[in-house]
Amino acid sequence: MSTHLAARYHRAGTVTADEVLRREPGPEEVEIAPLFTGICGTDLHIAAGHMDGRVSVPAVIGHETVGRVSALGRDATGWEVGDLVTVVPLRPDGTCPTCRNGHSHVCDHLDFLGIDSDGALAEHWVVPAHTLVRVPEGTEPRDAALLEPTSVAVHDVRRARLAPGELAAVVGGGPVGLLIALVARHVGAEVVLSEPDPTRRELAARLGIDAVDPTHEDLADVTRARSGGAGAAVAFEVSGSEPGLAAAAASLAVRGRLCLVGIHAAPRTVDLHPFFWRELELLGARLYERRDVEEAVRLVAGGELPVAQLVSHVLPLARVEEAFAALAAGGAVKVLVDCRPAGGSTS
Amino acid sequence: MSTHLAARYHRAGTVTADEVLRREPGPEEVEIAPLFTGICGTDLHIAAGHMDGRVSVPAVIGHETVGRVSALGRDATGWEVGDLVTVVPLRPDGTCPTCRNGHSHVCDHLDFLGIDSDGALAEHWVVPAHTLVRVPEGTEPRDAALLEPTSVAVHDVRRARLAPGELAAVVGGGPVGLLIALVARHVGAEVVLSEPDPTRRELAARLGIDAVDPTHEDLADVTRARSGGAGAAVAFEVSGSEPGLAAAAASLAVRGRLCLVGIHAAPRTVDLHPFFWRELELLGARLYERRDVEEAVRLVAGGELPVAQLVSHVLPLARVEEAFAALAAGGAVKVLVDCRPAGGSTS
Repeated sequence: MSTHLAARYHRAGTVTADEVLRREPGPEEVEIAPLFTGICGTDLHIAAGHMDGRVSVPAVIGHETVGRVSALGRDATGWEVGDLVTVVPLRPDGTCPTCRNGHSHVCDHLDFLGIDSDGALAEHWVVPAHTLVRVPEGTEPRDAALLEPTSVAVHDVRRARLAPGELAAVVGGGPVGLLIALVARHVGAEVVLSEPDPTRRELAARLGIDAVDPTHEDLADVTRARSGGAGAAVAFEVSGSEPGLAAAAASLAVRGRLCLVGIHAAPRTVDLHPFFWRELELLGARLYERRDVEEAVRLVAGGELPVAQLVSHVLPLARVEEAFAALAAGGAVKVLVDCRPAGGSTS
Repeated sequence: MSTHLAARYHRAGTVTADEVLRREPGPEEVEIAPLFTGICGTDLHIAAGHMDGRVSVPAVIGHETVGRVSALGRDATGWEVGDLVTVVPLRPDGTCPTCRNGHSHVCDHLDFLGIDSDGALAEHWVVPAHTLVRVPEGTEPRDAALLEPTSVAVHDVRRARLAPGELAAVVGGGPVGLLIALVARHVGAEVVLSEPDPTRRELAARLGIDAVDPTHEDLADVTRARSGGAGAAVAFEVSGSEPGLAAAAASLAVRGRLCLVGIHAAPRTVDLHPFFWRELELLGARLYERRDVEEAVRLVAGGELPVAQLVSHVLPLARVEEAFAALAAGGAVKVLVDCRPAGGSTS
């Protein structure tokens, strides 16, 4: 049995690059060789020990990747070694009531690859063949490594039914908030982002996105001023904070849609009266469906979104500890891990 | 100037039937002679003094009515004295951003007739001609007096996009909850109502609506059992209570819609995580649009809904104090006031 390098979570605070056994693909599986894998906020939560109830250690983590097919299972048809691909890291059971109702992306017993089972921060990753999505040759791999969070943004914008010409407020300017702003602008919406961190606001400005500082300016004043007094048609709550939620609701016009993207793990105090009085709508949005990933591929491969500007760090897999430390320290935006064997093949 | 009898709110706890001046209709107004006017929960709030900041005393209140046209303003075309009508008691300003966006039923400066200006608990009521909706001759007037709360139910069911074959949970079995259940059943949904009061559950049973007692049974268990484990497609929160809200959310399937009908004046503690995790939707619903009232007329005039069974009391206008007392005492469902002059015309 051969071995390869993989980033493994062991216990709170400890992620290391280890030489581990390489697994053969089963009949309906494919092995890919990741080129670049992004570190997600969820990976950071795992590394901090917040998800020990869900993750079986030692765990190879990571789920935001682009790679090339490196081996095929017996029944994995339609793919060839060398194909450039991304992975929809969702393995639904296909039998639960939620799957039967057509919402398998939030299956009641979802296996999220890279959290519930082995992930993409490794030189090789074995995944079900059905999770692959083709990426056009010529796509810059560093851009393609952002396909997963871009799929989140595409899903959120679609969930919110955002239409050309509408005004959208985005509360929170991390990678997902910025990607939502970019996708929203791409569909023809007018976008205003709210973000207290000046570095993130500067990045937004470089991306051509208007950003307000909520510690100095009231988002609702801004959305009303830009809409003849009505307010925003859509607000994306990406901060996961109670004040962010209140600001998102206040920014909306009558019948406005609040897309809940941020994770509110603790119960929140919510003023529901405006939801009634102004007939607001709240739409929970989690993950993405395959069609969102396909749309993200279309946008990123077509150069429609300046995603490269979100990448603040690229570090080799052997230095994965530094990659996690950079993200945990704050100030980083998107940290990519170069998973190619040292001095190895080009993309 | 002639006078007529009208129920007026004077101060907390005091509603009296007074002989007051009768107003002539202006050019674009119509005078109607109400036959029956229902007492709404909002009227009860006014009578209790909860809305003194909004109501100018002495105030003729009431807004759930059916009547006959009794006089026409100069420019009020299309109507004749004697026409059977109901009133959409909404006078929007037509110029605010919300009106301009097509949502005039929740106008930023809405004049709600019977709250913000004179109402229907009187022998005559002068209203803008645009508020009239024709009621087919032959419709039982006591049924037609329930057109306004039926319009609320039609609006809520439409807001929730309830479809035939879907499972709907209704949390709260007062008049509006019962009417939502009836309208939901009429559109072909399967309905389960949750109501702790045994008298209201008995009425639901007489209406053929399954009702569970939330103090003894978990609504979510019931909705899952009836949907192969998935949960309800739609939940209507009509209780205005925090536990009711939690029960409504818990009863839903993935992607379920929670229609917020009850008034939550105080901030609530809400677990937003299921809204994210299960991609739930919350839809605020207030009042109704003209098309909802027209649909309510079609349903009630066509005998499609057994609304007569909701009427627990009918009292003459001269005894309006008793009518309010009956409703305030609890145990009543819908209390109607007979506004016809004593010993006067038939309907």
